[in-house]
Amino acid sequence: MSYSESRAWLQSDISSDIRYETDTSLPPEGFRLSGGSGAYTVVSADEAGRMYGSYALQAKLSLGETDVSLESAPAVSERILNHWDNITGVVERGYSGASLFFKDGALAYDPERMRFYARLLASVGVNRICFNNVNVTPGSAKLITGELLPSLSKLAAIFRPFHIRVIIAVDFNSPVLLGGLPTSDPLDGSIAAWWQSAADAVYKEIPDLAGFLVKADSEFRNGPAALGRTQADGANVIARALEAHGGKVYWRCFVYNCEQDWRDGVTDRPKAAYDHFFPLDGEFDRNVVLQVKHGPSDFQVREPNSPLLGAMKHTSQAVELQITQEYTGQQIDLYALAVQWEEIFAAPVSDTRLTRDLIGSEVTAVAAVANTGSGENWTGHTLAQANLYAFGRFAWDPSVSAQDVLNDWIGLTFGTDPALREPLLRMMLSSRGVYEKYNAPLGVCWMVNIHHHYGPSPEGYEFSKWGTYHRASRTAIGVDRTENGTGYTAQYHPALNKLYSDPKTCPEEMLLYFHRLPYDFVLKSGKTLLQHIYDTHFEGVRDVEGFIKTWDALKPLLPEGAYRSVAARLQWQLLNAREWRDVINTYFFRLTGIPDEKGRTIYP
Amino acid sequence: MSYSESRAWLQSDISSDIRYETDTSLPPEGFRLSGGSGAYTVVSADEAGRMYGSYALQAKLSLGETDVSLESAPAVSERILNHWDNITGVVERGYSGASLFFKDGALAYDPERMRFYARLLASVGVNRICFNNVNVTPGSAKLITGELLPSLSKLAAIFRPFHIRVIIAVDFNSPVLLGGLPTSDPLDGSIAAWWQSAADAVYKEIPDLAGFLVKADSEFRNGPAALGRTQADGANVIARALEAHGGKVYWRCFVYNCEQDWRDGVTDRPKAAYDHFFPLDGEFDRNVVLQVKHGPSDFQVREPNSPLLGAMKHTSQAVELQITQEYTGQQIDLYALAVQWEEIFAAPVSDTRLTRDLIGSEVTAVAAVANTGSGENWTGHTLAQANLYAFGRFAWDPSVSAQDVLNDWIGLTFGTDPALREPLLRMMLSSRGVYEKYNAPLGVCWMVNIHHHYGPSPEGYEFSKWGTYHRASRTAIGVDRTENGTGYTAQYHPALNKLYSDPKTCPEEMLLYFHRLPYDFVLKSGKTLLQHIYDTHFEGVRDVEGFIKTWDALKPLLPEGAYRSVAARLQWQLLNAREWRDVINTYFFRLTGIPDEKGRTIYP
Repeated sequence: MSYSESRAWLQSDISSDIRYETDTSLPPEGFRLSGGSGAYTVVSADEAGRMYGSYALQAKLSLGETDVSLESAPAVSERILNHWDNITGVVERGYSGASLFFKDGALAYDPERMRFYARLLASVGVNRICFNNVNVTPGSAKLITGELLPSLSKLAAIFRPFHIRVIIAVDFNSPVLLGGLPTSDPLDGSIAAWWQSAADAVYKEIPDLAGFLVKADSEFRNGPAALGRTQADGANVIARALEAHGGKVYWRCFVYNCEQDWRDGVTDRPKAAYDHFFPLDGEFDRNVVLQVKHGPSDFQVREPNSPLLGAMKHTSQAVELQITQEYTGQQIDLYALAVQWEEIFAAPVSDTRLTRDLIGSEVTAVAAVANTGSGENWTGHTLAQANLYAFGRFAWDPSVSAQDVLNDWIGLTFGTDPALREPLLRMMLSSRGVYEKYNAPLGVCWMVNIHHHYGPSPEGYEFSKWGTYHRASRTAIGVDRTENGTGYTAQYHPALNKLYSDPKTCPEEMLLYFHRLPYDFVLKSGKTLLQHIYDTHFEGVRDVEGFIKTWDALKPLLPEGAYRSVAARLQWQLLNAREWRDVINTYFFRLTGIPDEKGRTIYP
Repeated sequence: MSYSESRAWLQSDISSDIRYETDTSLPPEGFRLSGGSGAYTVVSADEAGRMYGSYALQAKLSLGETDVSLESAPAVSERILNHWDNITGVVERGYSGASLFFKDGALAYDPERMRFYARLLASVGVNRICFNNVNVTPGSAKLITGELLPSLSKLAAIFRPFHIRVIIAVDFNSPVLLGGLPTSDPLDGSIAAWWQSAADAVYKEIPDLAGFLVKADSEFRNGPAALGRTQADGANVIARALEAHGGKVYWRCFVYNCEQDWRDGVTDRPKAAYDHFFPLDGEFDRNVVLQVKHGPSDFQVREPNSPLLGAMKHTSQAVELQITQEYTGQQIDLYALAVQWEEIFAAPVSDTRLTRDLIGSEVTAVAAVANTGSGENWTGHTLAQANLYAFGRFAWDPSVSAQDVLNDWIGLTFGTDPALREPLLRMMLSSRGVYEKYNAPLGVCWMVNIHHHYGPSPEGYEFSKWGTYHRASRTAIGVDRTENGTGYTAQYHPALNKLYSDPKTCPEEMLLYFHRLPYDFVLKSGKTLLQHIYDTHFEGVRDVEGFIKTWDALKPLLPEGAYRSVAARLQWQLLNAREWRDVINTYFFRLTGIPDEKGRTIYP
C-alpha cells in the first residue's frame, strides 16, 4: 500500500486486550504469543522482543487468525538494511524516487515519514540501518565529522525507539580525506589514533551506533591493498577503534579486479572474494564482520552461492542480499525475491549443511541493499514492497518458505480473500522464473546493458574490464569454471565441486555459469541448449501476458491506485520481456544459424 | 604550439615593409600578394581581405618564402566554427578541457585569450563562430534574452575586429521556454511576432550577428514536425525575423528517427536527411541555410557523402564537418582530418561534378564542430591543432590538398627542416588510414562503445534505438542499401547509384556501408573479406608502433613539451589500437570460426 494509505492503516491499529509478560529465559528479541478471542499474551525477555511480539500478533490478527500460539526468535542478532543513498539525494541503483534521508549534501528528511519508516522496518524485524551509500563520497564521508554528526544523531534518535541501530558507511581513506594525514596506512600508529578519536567523537553523539561499514579496495575505492596491507590489517585498525564502544566493522568482500583484460582467460572474477579473504581466516578481530554478497558475481538473476559463505571458521560473516532490483527488473518488472532467497538459503554448502544452517552460526548477520525511496509507494513497483517485507522475514528466519512469506504479504496488504490471494500468490511465486526465462539463459549472466543494467545487450560486458565474459562463439558458450578450466569450483566443498563440475549433475539453471557447452548439448528435457533458449524466451513473454490477464481479472478486488500502478508496470514489463526475447533469440540465431524448431519469429 | 608559446610567437611577429592597397575589383575578403626581399604589397577590396592577405603573407614568410605572388579569395562567404559548449562549462564531445566561453551558467572567459583565439581563427579564415552547443539547454536558450545578451555582446566585440561574426544556437521552442507562450507553432502569428521581437532585441546588442543556428526535431529536441508543420515552416518563421537585420537561419538537417526498432529492416537512418529535406526544396526562404553533415551517418571514420549535398537546387546549404574527433580517436589517437576532407570534397556528386564544385554554388557555407577548449595546447592532442588549421584551409579552398595543408601546418608549427617535416608529414598523412585499419572494417560503422564513442564494441549499437545496425551473423555482415535492399543508393545521382550498387564497382573502403556480404567475398586484393579484416587490424597496430618510432626519432628536432605530450598520446593510441585489433578480430573469429591465414594471435 502507499505511504498515505499506510498512515491511515497505522491509525486504525487493531486494538485487543494484550497482556505483556517477561520471561528472561527467552532469547534476546524473541517472544512467545498465546491467547484467543480478543485476549492475548506477549511474553519476552526484553523490550525488543515485546515489540516484535506485538507486531507478530498484530500481523496474525490482521490475517484473520483468532487463536494464536507462537514462539519465535531471530536466527541472527543483526538484520541490516543498507541504503545506497548518496548525500546529494540520488539513490545509487534506486528505482523508487529520491533519498529518504539526504538532499544536496546534507541530511534532509520528513520526521513523520521517518518515524513511519522506522516502524515499518521494525515490524519486519530489521534492527540495523545504514543510511549512506557504501560508495562513500567526499560529502558523505563527513557523516562522522562535527559537520554532519549532530543531524545524523537526530535521525538515529528517531530509529532508536524501534530498536534499530545505525551503521555509518565510512571511507577507508578518511584519515587522509578528513584528517589531513599523509596516509591511511592501517599499520601506522597515527592512523589507529585517528580512527580512535573519530570513533570516540561519533559515539559521543550516537552511543548505540552499531558500527562502520566499509567498501575498500573495490571498484576504484581506497583500501589497504593499495598500501601493501591485508584486508585484515585494514578492517582491524577500524575495529579496534570501535571495540570499546561495542561497535563493529562491516567489511565488504566485494573485492575483485575491475580492470581485467578480457583476453585473460585465467583470472576469473567469481574466484576473487574467496581468494582475497579465505587465506585471512583467523586474522580478523572478533568485532569484524565480513559482508559477503550471496553470489560470486553481482546480484545476477541466477548465480550459485558464494563459496566464501561458511568457508571461514574463525571470522564472523554477513550475507548480503539485494532488495533493490538492479539486475532483476529495476522495479519495472515483477520479481519476487523471496523465491530466490528461499533457494539461496536452501542451497547446500557441503554434503551435510545448507546455507541456512550457517545463519546464526558462522553467519552472524543478514544484510540487504534497500529498495525504498521517497516515492509515494516506497518501492516504485507496488508489488516490490513484498521484497522488503520478505527480507525481514528471511533475515529473521531463513528457513521460512517464499510461499508463506508472499501469502502473508498479500494477506496483510490486499486482504485474505482467496479469490485475490491465490492467483496473486501464484503470479508472484512464478515471477522470478518468468524473468529468468526471458533474461540471459542458464546462469550465463551479464547479457545486460552496460552501466544502467536494464534491458538486454548480449555482448554488453563481453569486452569490458569488469571480468564478466561468456565468450559465446558460433559453436559454444560459457566459461569452464571446473578444475579443467578456471578452477573456480574447487573453492567449494568437495561434494559441491563434484556436483557442479559435471554438466550432467550441475543444476541446469546454472549450467552456463560453470560450463562451456556447445549449442547442441542435450538437456534433461531432451531439448538442445539452443532450443531451450528459444523456448524459454518465447515462454517468458507469454507468461508476462498471463500476468497481465491475471492482474486485470483481479481489478475488482484491488484498490484502484494499486491496480493502475501495477497494470502500468506490467505493460512496461511486457515491452522489456519482448525486447529480451527478440534480442537474445536473434543473437543466438545469428551466431548459430539454427532456426527455431517451432518456426516462431526470430528476427534475422 | 601551446597557448603560452603562441603568445610569445605573436609578440615576435615578423615585421616587414608591407604596403596596403585597395582594388575594388577583387572579390570580397580576397587579396593579392606580391613582392620580395622584405618589401611586399597586400591588395584587397576590403578590410577583411587586407587582414587575410596579411596573415597569408606572414605565413609565407614564416615558411621561408621570400618572393611572394598569390591571388586568393574564399570559395564561400561563410566559414563557420560551431562550438558544442554547454553553458555549464562542459564541452559536448570536447576533448581539450573545459569551455573557453562559459562556466556555471554564464559567460566566463579570459579576454586576452579570447583576442588570441579570434586572431587564431581569423588567421585560418574562419569568419563565423557559434559559441553555444546546438543542443541548447534551458540555460543557454537565455543567450537571446536580456539576462545573457549584454555579456555575449561583449564577447562578440572581441571577435568583431577579426571579421568574425557571431551565430547563436537557439531552441526552436524558445517562444514557450522564454516567452511563456502556449506553443511554438511556426504558423501561429504570435510566434512570428515573438521571434521578430526576440531578433530585434538581439540585433540591438549585436548588430552584425550572422544569425541563429537551430537543431530541431532531432534527437529528442523540439521542432516543427512535432507540431505537424514542415521543416520549412519552422526555419522560415525564424528566418523572417532575421531578414531585415541581414541575418540567416542555419537549420541542421540531422533529423532522423532516434527511437528506431532494430527489428525494423525497412527504415534506414542514412536515408533520413534526404527524405526529410529534399521534398522541401524551394520552400525555404532565401536566408535559410540547411546545414548538412558531410556523411549520412554521423561523422564516422568512413562513410559516403550525404546524398542531400547538392541535391537541392533552390536552397542554400552548408556542409558540416567535425573537427573534434568524436568517432575518430577523441584527440588521443592521431587522425589528420585533412585527409578525410580532401576525399570528401573530391568525391563525386554526379557523373560530371565533384563535391567541391558545389562549394560557392549550392553550398554557401562550410561549418565544422570545433576541437578547441581551455587546455593549454587548445586541442588536447598537440597534432590535432592541424585539424583546426586544416578546417580553415579547406573552407577557404576546398580544392587544396591534404599534403599541402599538413606540410604548411608542420612548417608553421615546428619549422621547415626537412628532417622533421618529411617524416612527420608522412605520419600525419597516413594517420587517417591507420585509424581506419584498426577500427570498424570497410565502412561498416558503429562498432563503438555506446554513448562515449571511444574504443571498440562490435555490437555496442546493434540492438539500440539509434538506427545503427550492421546485423553481422555467422555468414555475412552489412546492410544492403541498394534498390534490392533499403533503397538508400537511389538517393544519389544515377551514376553514383550504379557505382555504389555493384559490389564490384563500389569503392572498397565503403563496401559494407552499401552491401551485405559473406565473409568469403573476394576483394580486389584477392583476399577474402574476413582475411582483409584480420590483416588490416594487425597492420593498424604495427603502423601505430611505427608512429612511435618515427616520433621518437624526431625528438631532437622537437620542442620538449610537444615531444612529450605527443609521445604520451601515441602510447595511449597504441593501447587503443591493440584493443580494437583484438576485439574486432576476436568478434569475427567467434562468429566465423575461421582462423587467420597467417596464424597470428586471435584470442578465442
